[in-house]
Amino acid sequence: MMNINRRNLVLAAGSAITASAVGLPVLAATPGRKLGYAIVGLGGYGLGIIIPQFKNCQHSKLVALVSGDPAKAKRVAAEYGVPERSIYDYKNFDAIKDNPDIDIVYVCLPVSMHAEYTIRAAAAGKHVMCEKPMAVSSAECEAMIAACKKAGKKLMIGYRCHFEAHNLEAVRFARSGAIGKLRYFRSEHGFTAGNPNAWRLKKAMSGGGSLMDIGIYALNAARYMTGEEPIAVYAKETTDRNDPRFREVEDMIEFQLEFPSGVIGSCMSMYSANQNHILLVGDKGRIDMEPGTRYDGNKLWVGQDRSNQITPPPGPGLTQWAGQLDHLSLCILNNKEPIVAGEEGLRDIRIIEAVYRSAREQKRIALA
Amino acid sequence: MMNINRRNLVLAAGSAITASAVGLPVLAATPGRKLGYAIVGLGGYGLGIIIPQFKNCQHSKLVALVSGDPAKAKRVAAEYGVPERSIYDYKNFDAIKDNPDIDIVYVCLPVSMHAEYTIRAAAAGKHVMCEKPMAVSSAECEAMIAACKKAGKKLMIGYRCHFEAHNLEAVRFARSGAIGKLRYFRSEHGFTAGNPNAWRLKKAMSGGGSLMDIGIYALNAARYMTGEEPIAVYAKETTDRNDPRFREVEDMIEFQLEFPSGVIGSCMSMYSANQNHILLVGDKGRIDMEPGTRYDGNKLWVGQDRSNQITPPPGPGLTQWAGQLDHLSLCILNNKEPIVAGEEGLRDIRIIEAVYRSAREQKRIALA
Repeated sequence: MMNINRRNLVLAAGSAITASAVGLPVLAATPGRKLGYAIVGLGGYGLGIIIPQFKNCQHSKLVALVSGDPAKAKRVAAEYGVPERSIYDYKNFDAIKDNPDIDIVYVCLPVSMHAEYTIRAAAAGKHVMCEKPMAVSSAECEAMIAACKKAGKKLMIGYRCHFEAHNLEAVRFARSGAIGKLRYFRSEHGFTAGNPNAWRLKKAMSGGGSLMDIGIYALNAARYMTGEEPIAVYAKETTDRNDPRFREVEDMIEFQLEFPSGVIGSCMSMYSANQNHILLVGDKGRIDMEPGTRYDGNKLWVGQDRSNQITPPPGPGLTQWAGQLDHLSLCILNNKEPIVAGEEGLRDIRIIEAVYRSAREQKRIALA
Repeated sequence: MMNINRRNLVLAAGSAITASAVGLPVLAATPGRKLGYAIVGLGGYGLGIIIPQFKNCQHSKLVALVSGDPAKAKRVAAEYGVPERSIYDYKNFDAIKDNPDIDIVYVCLPVSMHAEYTIRAAAAGKHVMCEKPMAVSSAECEAMIAACKKAGKKLMIGYRCHFEAHNLEAVRFARSGAIGKLRYFRSEHGFTAGNPNAWRLKKAMSGGGSLMDIGIYALNAARYMTGEEPIAVYAKETTDRNDPRFREVEDMIEFQLEFPSGVIGSCMSMYSANQNHILLVGDKGRIDMEPGTRYDGNKLWVGQDRSNQITPPPGPGLTQWAGQLDHLSLCILNNKEPIVAGEEGLRDIRIIEAVYRSAREQKRIALA
């Protein structure tokens, strides 16, 4: 039983630790100068989601592509006006060092390839945006951070929700005291995994199952919504190993987070159903988001129930991705640390490792 | 990691174990014969909620009152047509044995008095309805069951939700396969405790805090919604012991339930905010209730989100309380066991004891 009188103190300290997270950085724009991104990986996210977003950016542009599929790369390059000389594959990738158009490399590859391409990009003298989850292990995350630091380059993790208007507004409500003293955080995140051959279901490529892929939204939200870092976890996993989708990675995992102030976080991720919900309960009301972290259509209610729906003010970009892409560009132009730097990704992976360990050992794991 | 191929098998077995719970018993009515209830305790629930319900009953009537406040008892008796000879206090309570109008004693007292008055009622040859939670310990529950068995009298626990239309319909949806294979159950139940001197905040009278009082709704729902019995629990408690309301009992407790089929249950109870939600997630959809177990105004949605609101068919009584009161009368008239007999109350208390132990010891507790 924890005395929570220390809460204000600890929350303040927690805020300091994660002060940068889900803040709205005041960064000077540099009109006329757009930084150039190379997109590594023309899969569903890189090609389908990120590349179309440059038209919404103020400080970022698409200048290069890296793909193992030359025909696809050529087609995409033509569509988006990328010169053929700025198409690379995984063998000649390191030649990007000689391409002055490329300021930033955005790693949109299966998780197992994040560390290698982040480190190679830094060695080539480029800044790096790396998709979440940051890597398959905290050791890899540490190596990525060290490589970027050694190269003097920025490293940012693709936590798009830190630039999503509903999430930003929810954090402002939480910090404002609108719901009183925060007591409880809950989030479920899941979707129905389809093709058993998808890379996300192959442990060697994904590093894990629903927790790594979608549960990380619940975990990251627990941290940015509370403004605190968890001190212990407990987890239970249930997976039907006879389901061909789940031979290698977990389906469902439920994990509890203990926060220093006494806030309890309860999170669940799954690959067997769609669920996307964030709830904060304070002693004066609640902040409710359902869906909370989708690409679009997110909804936010603040009060005792769902009678008071909030339309948030615009986020920092035209879209959450434009905000994210431009944030790294502005950080580079202004020499500031990104609000979701490599250390943010490392923190999540360390907690994820503890969650998996807790589920394996069926016991509470204290976090260092 | 649990192989859940056994699920169908185990769910069927689980259903057998709790087959009676939240069923609609087919019990023959006996027109013209209403069984007589003595209400013990004229507090908020007995006087404010139960006594006004007899007008909605078909097989039950109010015939006697037991109170430590003679003036109040006299006033209530006059209002509800109870003869003065059928007013008792806690000293002459045992004289009910000589009152043939009384068939059933309904114990609406602080939890610490449940065992004593259940056992004395049975000894006086009366059937017993006892409010939830059944008692302050499983040992007391066992003594209550034994006393009623010895006396050849029925014992039912006041689980009103087993007679509430939305809950009954939700269970039917869950059993029908409408949401596919059930994977996850969640429920939060809480309200803002006010007066620090209320009996529910005194451990000697309540036996515990929010878990005993309101969290038991989440726990009981986890059992009747899944149709399974949990095999292990893990819990975390957070209480501000400097809050004058929480000097003796817990404020918030979050507990995870493991079910044999692999379903994970995640429950929370609190005394520091209002929350009343039940969610079942299956691999084909979800059953969502918010509020789920209120006196009125419960809402039910079935599907992928809240677009499909369900208006349930009527429950077994005009109200959940009428259904509950008449169920025991009909069980007595037909010599059937109530669907929420003493054993149902004992099961919850045993799990609650394990939840408290888990929170104290910070470890997973396997249930026998």
